[in-house]
Amino acid sequence: MDGIINDEFYMALALDMAERAQGQTGINPVVGCVVVKDGAMVGLGTHLQRGTAHAEVHALNMAGDRAEGSTVYVTLEPCSHYGKTPPCSERLIREKVKRVVVACEDPNPQVAGRGIDLLRRSGIEVEVGLLGDRSRRLNEKFIKYITTGLPYLTVKTASTLDGRIAAESGDSKWITNEAAREQVHTLRHRHQGIMVGVNTVIADNPQLTTRLQGAIGLNPVRIIVDSLLRIPLESKVVRDGAAPTVILTTERADPDKAEALKKIGVETIRCGSGPQVDLRLAMQELGKREIGSILVEGGGRLNGALLEARLIDRIVLYFAPKIVGGPAAPVNFSLRGADKMADAVRLEDVETEVLGDNVCISGKPVWPA
Amino acid sequence: MDGIINDEFYMALALDMAERAQGQTGINPVVGCVVVKDGAMVGLGTHLQRGTAHAEVHALNMAGDRAEGSTVYVTLEPCSHYGKTPPCSERLIREKVKRVVVACEDPNPQVAGRGIDLLRRSGIEVEVGLLGDRSRRLNEKFIKYITTGLPYLTVKTASTLDGRIAAESGDSKWITNEAAREQVHTLRHRHQGIMVGVNTVIADNPQLTTRLQGAIGLNPVRIIVDSLLRIPLESKVVRDGAAPTVILTTERADPDKAEALKKIGVETIRCGSGPQVDLRLAMQELGKREIGSILVEGGGRLNGALLEARLIDRIVLYFAPKIVGGPAAPVNFSLRGADKMADAVRLEDVETEVLGDNVCISGKPVWPA
Repeated sequence: MDGIINDEFYMALALDMAERAQGQTGINPVVGCVVVKDGAMVGLGTHLQRGTAHAEVHALNMAGDRAEGSTVYVTLEPCSHYGKTPPCSERLIREKVKRVVVACEDPNPQVAGRGIDLLRRSGIEVEVGLLGDRSRRLNEKFIKYITTGLPYLTVKTASTLDGRIAAESGDSKWITNEAAREQVHTLRHRHQGIMVGVNTVIADNPQLTTRLQGAIGLNPVRIIVDSLLRIPLESKVVRDGAAPTVILTTERADPDKAEALKKIGVETIRCGSGPQVDLRLAMQELGKREIGSILVEGGGRLNGALLEARLIDRIVLYFAPKIVGGPAAPVNFSLRGADKMADAVRLEDVETEVLGDNVCISGKPVWPA
Repeated sequence: MDGIINDEFYMALALDMAERAQGQTGINPVVGCVVVKDGAMVGLGTHLQRGTAHAEVHALNMAGDRAEGSTVYVTLEPCSHYGKTPPCSERLIREKVKRVVVACEDPNPQVAGRGIDLLRRSGIEVEVGLLGDRSRRLNEKFIKYITTGLPYLTVKTASTLDGRIAAESGDSKWITNEAAREQVHTLRHRHQGIMVGVNTVIADNPQLTTRLQGAIGLNPVRIIVDSLLRIPLESKVVRDGAAPTVILTTERADPDKAEALKKIGVETIRCGSGPQVDLRLAMQELGKREIGSILVEGGGRLNGALLEARLIDRIVLYFAPKIVGGPAAPVNFSLRGADKMADAVRLEDVETEVLGDNVCISGKPVWPA
């Protein structure tokens, strides 16, 4: 409970800080740190951006001389290696802190435990695991990327109660309410990439930017799935410069069109010989380009193809209380489908949120064996 | 609040009693009554079954001599006419009660206010409107039937997140979890009829009975929509005698089959010349037979036809966290559909309930102008 001051009280604050930083650390994890000395906080810090100071460094800087003999709460194991910044374990040792409470080990299996070992060998008391589940949940995207090299894929859909993402005519304005749409912009802020099919670009010419109150969101890289490079050269995602744009295509695409796109700063990545973009290959390529998380706002076909390819890490479905009908109205997931209900893809760790008269259902897909 | 003793405290109990009686009063309303004298309850009552005593009578009987000078809380205006029982207004006057608090007026516009007038003319203090919305909500079915002669129609669906009520093969075992399925049996208990299409009878041979813990549910009348009387004579709903069965058909159906059904106690009602059952006519016929509420557990086509005919009063959708796919997998509502999203049927007064990893979304349909 928030009202009782104990280890959890301070770790929860460290996690709150990390939570707010989701989306701004790129492929890095979000981390928070609280330094407590003689019964009171003396330092707070959170990792803000890749290539800049880690949470521990900010917090220890704030603490200054008072770090000596302190307890340090940190949501992720302090690093032990020279990356873009010097190792935090060494800094903690140098500051002569007394005790370190760690929410969870470094998820990178190649370095997990090393930072903790280093601290312990220097006589610092270390406890591991407090609110570990919450810390891992905050860093799901980081964990996926660091362990596989592939981006974490969130597929978001907005549909009616009969599962349609548009009327038969293609009209989809608007399905969900404002609260749901605001959440979607928050999701955009928290992913490094946003992915749609080229048909969405052709039909709606969207910006795919993050529009939050007071312009306080980050724009993800726009990723367009476009097997034949049909994207109009005048479309906003190609022209507006609001964020980088990458196009996933195939060997079948016109090289001249690729060249024209390159001239205006748009990268094309050929993923396989076609006819469809090889989505698994595409994920590898995007991973190599340090895009560690992608929000898919595709149509039913792209969503279905990603589901069949088992590339999705999380599905977030918004439902509005409407029934639109129409046998050919597009569905949220279009796929060949299972023969038995027991073989359906199911979601686990399901979370449900009521947003006025809309509902958000989300979870992690689990495929039949 | 439940902890503060006031008018609302006693009216809430009267409503609680009425609420528990939903389903057992047939076309009659549910009504609860509490009698309070000298600061304490002296009588409680609820209407149990059509043709038996009203709530006020039970409560006044319990109160005996202590009814004189009491305050009576009753969830619906006391009746003023001789129906199957003598008028409650007269009984209240005879008992010399001092004050009557009424949640809502009789919804029957032809008699609304008469009972209250009668009480007031006898010098009894009457207040109207306390928790009126809750009382009307409890009697939605009664209100629909008494004002239109048509049954109140609830359509219930159970689908995956892509809106499918079965896999392409037709397999649907099971979509929803146990908590959702228990709620469905509670819904059955609370409707006088249960309606399915004949294809469901042919495919699944269901009993369509109410299976609740400890056999404490009432079985609704089974209503089968079967335009050509294709129902197998050996199907459970025809043979098991668990509840009456009525078949809605058309002029095109074979008279010999109708005769065979009649011989084993199954009524057929011809609703129009076909090819489909005239659903509006069917509702009128069922209304004439004093079926005041129907739970539809149909397939997507029946649900869609009822939606297009604007016959539905409430839609209750259960969603399980699964994606089954399959372009031809049946959807929860199959209908021609709207051209614009703004012309979709929408639900109002939406209620959302989380049942483990399933979700129930319900509301009243509102059709575009």
